[in-house]
Amino acid sequence: MGEKFRALVEHLGEVTNVNRATSLLGWDQRVNMPPGGAAARSRQLATLSRIGHDLFVDEKTARLLDAAESEIAGMPYESDEASLIRVVREDYREQTRLPSTFVAEFARVTSEANEVWAHARAHNDFAHFRPSLERIIELVRQSTEYLGYTEHPYDALIGQYERGITTARVREIFEGHKPRLVALISAISKVRDRVSDALVHQSYDIDKQRAFAMEVVKGFGYDMARGHQATAVHPFMSGYSSDARITTRFNANWLNPALFGMMHEAGHAMYEQGVGKNLEGGPLENGTSLGVHESQSRMWENMIGRSRGFWKWAFPKLQAHFPAQLARATSEDFYRAVNKVEPTLIRVEADEATYNLHIMLRFEIETGLIGGQIKVADLPEAWNEMFQAYLGITPSNDTLGVLQDIHWSNGLVGYFATYALGNLLAAQYYNKALADHPAIPHEIEQGKFDTLLTWLNTNIHVHGRKFTSDELTRKVCGEGINADAYIAYLEKKFGDLYGL
Amino acid sequence: MGEKFRALVEHLGEVTNVNRATSLLGWDQRVNMPPGGAAARSRQLATLSRIGHDLFVDEKTARLLDAAESEIAGMPYESDEASLIRVVREDYREQTRLPSTFVAEFARVTSEANEVWAHARAHNDFAHFRPSLERIIELVRQSTEYLGYTEHPYDALIGQYERGITTARVREIFEGHKPRLVALISAISKVRDRVSDALVHQSYDIDKQRAFAMEVVKGFGYDMARGHQATAVHPFMSGYSSDARITTRFNANWLNPALFGMMHEAGHAMYEQGVGKNLEGGPLENGTSLGVHESQSRMWENMIGRSRGFWKWAFPKLQAHFPAQLARATSEDFYRAVNKVEPTLIRVEADEATYNLHIMLRFEIETGLIGGQIKVADLPEAWNEMFQAYLGITPSNDTLGVLQDIHWSNGLVGYFATYALGNLLAAQYYNKALADHPAIPHEIEQGKFDTLLTWLNTNIHVHGRKFTSDELTRKVCGEGINADAYIAYLEKKFGDLYGL
Repeated sequence: MGEKFRALVEHLGEVTNVNRATSLLGWDQRVNMPPGGAAARSRQLATLSRIGHDLFVDEKTARLLDAAESEIAGMPYESDEASLIRVVREDYREQTRLPSTFVAEFARVTSEANEVWAHARAHNDFAHFRPSLERIIELVRQSTEYLGYTEHPYDALIGQYERGITTARVREIFEGHKPRLVALISAISKVRDRVSDALVHQSYDIDKQRAFAMEVVKGFGYDMARGHQATAVHPFMSGYSSDARITTRFNANWLNPALFGMMHEAGHAMYEQGVGKNLEGGPLENGTSLGVHESQSRMWENMIGRSRGFWKWAFPKLQAHFPAQLARATSEDFYRAVNKVEPTLIRVEADEATYNLHIMLRFEIETGLIGGQIKVADLPEAWNEMFQAYLGITPSNDTLGVLQDIHWSNGLVGYFATYALGNLLAAQYYNKALADHPAIPHEIEQGKFDTLLTWLNTNIHVHGRKFTSDELTRKVCGEGINADAYIAYLEKKFGDLYGL
Repeated sequence: MGEKFRALVEHLGEVTNVNRATSLLGWDQRVNMPPGGAAARSRQLATLSRIGHDLFVDEKTARLLDAAESEIAGMPYESDEASLIRVVREDYREQTRLPSTFVAEFARVTSEANEVWAHARAHNDFAHFRPSLERIIELVRQSTEYLGYTEHPYDALIGQYERGITTARVREIFEGHKPRLVALISAISKVRDRVSDALVHQSYDIDKQRAFAMEVVKGFGYDMARGHQATAVHPFMSGYSSDARITTRFNANWLNPALFGMMHEAGHAMYEQGVGKNLEGGPLENGTSLGVHESQSRMWENMIGRSRGFWKWAFPKLQAHFPAQLARATSEDFYRAVNKVEPTLIRVEADEATYNLHIMLRFEIETGLIGGQIKVADLPEAWNEMFQAYLGITPSNDTLGVLQDIHWSNGLVGYFATYALGNLLAAQYYNKALADHPAIPHEIEQGKFDTLLTWLNTNIHVHGRKFTSDELTRKVCGEGINADAYIAYLEKKFGDLYGL
């Protein structure tokens, strides 16, 4: 490594250190912080975010990039060095486009809006949230002008979370599988009683839930020498390769939140843990996009954790933890219980098959809000109509409808789509892993997950943020993101389960 | 508040935010961080420490201090404004005196020395640690020249932890009560079997230990809406008024570490929680010195937690948690058991009566090392000789002797004395509280602690760092720090217990 490149790496390392410290403060805020600490923590987060941002958008970064680039001329596109320059240039472009006065105003408005939204949701009072949301949409639209886009202003938003993808491409993908998804859900709805989830709705001791779920994720390959598990109301993963932490929510009368939640977050954490050591401590050490990240969590949660083969291995172990609840059930009974499909109102509780419909609805609403076809005032009505059309049910109030998600109050518009893209990518990657290693399903029945994890490490994780999700997916699967594998997977799995 | 003063407060608030973030990273490092996270955490801590330091020692701070000072001319010495300027000027002077190259070298050497010391202690190999310690003492001596002193170079060191105190004053205080302390220990040693601590050495379930100790510290007044308790190998308190956290070490066969450790750390935390809201978020929001801090922890741990009256109230509760272990004991039996005095080798396990002798020994050694009368090579021998003279026993190896403490490997020289000063101050403050409120001992027998806590809040805590320990002690007690109250307290308590 030449002297100039080293200077760039050192500078970016400092930025990374500040950003990781900021993340840890956020993790602690949601895991350990007593309520009295909230105001001071907000101040600390504001200062650290500002310092991290200032350090990065400083003209020094541009100068170091230029100098380092001249030094590594001719290095291949896939090299760590060329990738660092390429990705960081794009980060720099993105972060320097928003004027700092705008960033401050946006932070102020969303910080206030968050409280307003929480109150509105608690009191089923959309009108209370409406002025805040109107202001946020106005600011978000303004941000698209700063960020720039070619076709649709929404491109600028979704591109922040899934670099390089466009609104048109997402719409094409969503429209491509929506009819088959709606048809599948509709068919299942007619025979919904063929699958019962009564088994998972019993009294389950929380310590035992934790013990079993930890046994599972450690079995998957989640490395606790670089991991940590804690309890949080809204579960999430936070960290990077050497310290990737998961949080879990427990329900004493329902197995799913902790069990599948832990698999999900461990999927995220194993992605981070698999990033190459060569990228550690720098801006490429994390997962590449929200969609690819979600592909990892969804794969472990659903394609593995909700598979028949997995429960052949895991069910006797679960039974040993909970003999009273499960003694008379078979692994097949349990497999069916964790795969019940039912249109419900709340996205975060949605099953594997209905989930993408929740996202498509949000995508339509967001593009409409940004494009100007939908007004904030009309949101509740638009939401409920679309919900009926997609899922065949209508929310009885806005708390269970348009007010359910925190994202908009945080100014996060363009984010939701990545959840659905994650489902699609999970199916594409998993198919490729199976094509490369046909024994994987058999291994899973024996509780052996290392062939799959090694494949993910080698093909996806190791690259960190070097490639965009599209570049990565083409590299791994020889094709861009699409819904074919996912919809085929759902139709087969649930067609079989429901005898369609 | 004028505009210039406000600008100063804002700038110092930013520094405070960074410093608190740094503390939280340190807390997490010892409580939650998986081993794999160590290297990255060191980098983050280095970056944040540097940023916090640079932000503070910037010439901007001096300029803002000057401007703000002109604005508050004429405000009384005790006002928040005058105190802020006065204390921060001194902080600034202290922190700008060490050249940044020196600070970096010191950090590098001590960071390496820490590993070397840990290895040396584990292998009882002082020779392995010797070169590192020699280099540290050399650097520490050099730092005294940068920091400045009037009489003894050690003044510069102890002054970092207890602003304004001198080596001569500490020696005078220590020499003043050492003979009586040595005599007391010696007298007790002759009748040591009159008190048995067998009761605390039984099997005690850790969850129940935690539950009882939490009941006690919440009873004291430790506010959990601004507090947090976690487990750590080396217990400590970390935080500030709105988020003051304690950590605890548990031993399943010995009640003392968790029980008295939690009282001790809660004493520190209640100090922070009692600092005036007017000081929140700025550089005066913490306790004023290590000695005054230790006076609070020691008071709750020893003067309250090891008092006969306290156990009249608390013992039946402890009995209810541990009927099998304690059913046949009385509160008087238990009071005696937690007050056994016995010369032992390890400072952190020392009882109330022998503790200060451990410190005096370290004070003599440190002043000798800095003054040049003792060489690092001669340390083991010097340690063992002094130990025999003070405590009547000799360590069988260096791991149990000169290698036991982490402090020197961290470059902390001048720190130990504050532990002993804390004991003295605890007795002085407690006597004054009793003089103001003679009912306190009676209230404690009823489990009522708020008169005492309110007195501490009003007389000590509320001031934060506004006054030096000497200023504060004169203000509260009408006299400077001295050993009279402490030695009288020990002689009375243990004279009674051991029938001397």
